[in-house]
Amino acid sequence: MGPSSPVTLDAVAARAGVSRQTVSNVLRHPGRVAAATRERVMAAIEESGYRPSLPARQLATRRAHAIAVRAERQQDGISGLVLDAFYHGLAEAGQDAGLRVLLYAQPADEAAEVAVIDELVLTGSVDAVVLTATNADDERPAHLRRHGTTFCAFGRPWGHDDEPHDWVDVDGAVGTGLAVRHLLDRGRRRIAYLGWPGDGEQPSTGTDRRRGWLEALAAAPVAQAPVEARSLNDAAAAEAAVTELLGGPDAPDAIVCASDTLALGAHRAAVALAEGGEPATVVGFDATPVSAALGLVSVAQPIDQAAHLCIDLLTGRLEAPDRPARGLLVPPVLHIPS
Amino acid sequence: MGPSSPVTLDAVAARAGVSRQTVSNVLRHPGRVAAATRERVMAAIEESGYRPSLPARQLATRRAHAIAVRAERQQDGISGLVLDAFYHGLAEAGQDAGLRVLLYAQPADEAAEVAVIDELVLTGSVDAVVLTATNADDERPAHLRRHGTTFCAFGRPWGHDDEPHDWVDVDGAVGTGLAVRHLLDRGRRRIAYLGWPGDGEQPSTGTDRRRGWLEALAAAPVAQAPVEARSLNDAAAAEAAVTELLGGPDAPDAIVCASDTLALGAHRAAVALAEGGEPATVVGFDATPVSAALGLVSVAQPIDQAAHLCIDLLTGRLEAPDRPARGLLVPPVLHIPS
Repeated sequence: MGPSSPVTLDAVAARAGVSRQTVSNVLRHPGRVAAATRERVMAAIEESGYRPSLPARQLATRRAHAIAVRAERQQDGISGLVLDAFYHGLAEAGQDAGLRVLLYAQPADEAAEVAVIDELVLTGSVDAVVLTATNADDERPAHLRRHGTTFCAFGRPWGHDDEPHDWVDVDGAVGTGLAVRHLLDRGRRRIAYLGWPGDGEQPSTGTDRRRGWLEALAAAPVAQAPVEARSLNDAAAAEAAVTELLGGPDAPDAIVCASDTLALGAHRAAVALAEGGEPATVVGFDATPVSAALGLVSVAQPIDQAAHLCIDLLTGRLEAPDRPARGLLVPPVLHIPS
Repeated sequence: MGPSSPVTLDAVAARAGVSRQTVSNVLRHPGRVAAATRERVMAAIEESGYRPSLPARQLATRRAHAIAVRAERQQDGISGLVLDAFYHGLAEAGQDAGLRVLLYAQPADEAAEVAVIDELVLTGSVDAVVLTATNADDERPAHLRRHGTTFCAFGRPWGHDDEPHDWVDVDGAVGTGLAVRHLLDRGRRRIAYLGWPGDGEQPSTGTDRRRGWLEALAAAPVAQAPVEARSLNDAAAAEAAVTELLGGPDAPDAIVCASDTLALGAHRAAVALAEGGEPATVVGFDATPVSAALGLVSVAQPIDQAAHLCIDLLTGRLEAPDRPARGLLVPPVLHIPS
């Protein structure tokens, strides 16, 4: 059967002895159809030569039925764990929503990244984008808004509330607050914070996590005056910063960290300086296998939930482009190794 | 300008004062074009209303210019690190080869997975698939071959050499051989292996890694007779298995592990049983942040290289569908923490 006599969905349905809707389900949502029925429909599709064409549907609907997300360059790999779960969540939620998820390799900088996104959108390859790792100096949201590109950020519009867009983020301040209360419950009184350079200066993920620590301490009369240190997100740098912190006056008995990478360095310093005594208790952020391997408490982001919410916001936005921007903040939980 | 009077690539080129090829490069390979030129071409595209359509190109060429790869369900997260790098490598190499990379969420089982792949191929959403985590009982390669689906496996056709297909894999036996020689160089003589259930019974990743250990020991006259243990890929189970191994006669002074998850459990058991003395030396596999955090030597897979080779094989196969199947085995390196 050549391209001049296209096979219809109805012909496939008749051949398989099922409804048109069932054929459609087999093609769009195979998980919803019983295995035996799926098998019969797939056989009918193959025998009839039916080829339901996504490109044709894309041309007809002027929709790509796909979104794009960035594949991160490897850094230390520890934080990569969170994105891994994010990709799976997007693919799963996207599948249910009829949106394919396309990966693009992290370009050299934000200017190159928006060029890649523009190309994906202009060629009709995707309908929308999920932005990851937003920051206060981020050029991407404003660029995408200028070009009318549909997007949802995983991360808040730090300091850019005047340029509203859809976003989903995890409430870092709630997470570090949970960490502080956990430490207070276990008798710790001098609870320090180990953050990144610039935390507390401008709106950012780090500033948010630091704020939760500060507020939880302020609410606890038994806690001592807060001390803190800052380090690049690198275990060796964190170890050096915490070695200094623990060697000084008012040495803390616990340290809340902005990431598991920092927690790894902090834990090394704490163990090295304990000299057989009780080391300062370190709490991490992201609940990666690294903090689990070290037996550290860590704040766990509900990544799967965040990914599903990103897809929800995008599907809502694609259906109602003029809907007001929406931001969703989801609370993390404290992961306590057994 | 309505859809009835489409703007051509030439019109855009004339407006921007560049060649047709430059416009095409801006759309396909933005990284190859100087920023200023890219800016000018993008402005011309926007002003003219030109919309180079991927769906149209897909229909014209009967190619999706895309491949699919599975987004793994989170397991312990430790091995997820390797896939993270794999995704980035595929996206990067795919971009250079003009192939988009599409993620599909890991279905419940292999039967459901081939249904998802069939749908992606039948709807013209992708031209080919990268299969991950192949195994001896794998139903997927035979199914894809039956349906004429182009694919490349990251993983060998364990025990199915009669059903040849394109694959890329990392030579695990070389990796564990490196680990054994490293341990011998450091004076270890009773070098055990901690593998997965079934290792050594049928062709598999674990059997391959075990073989490298066994052969390296056989080649070293100073080494003692090999002992080994098996455990599910779970740190607690590994800890129990190694506790037993270290408590028995011929207790090893070193343990080569099939994964970093196993190495984590083995390291815990070794430290617990050392009672202040020198613990048995543990070597992991995959060089994840977990083994790095514990200061363990681990075998590092060249994941980025493997991803690029998968794309090479797929592009070659798409151009020459009848080419003989090709398998590429790349050697790992030993990662020694400083």
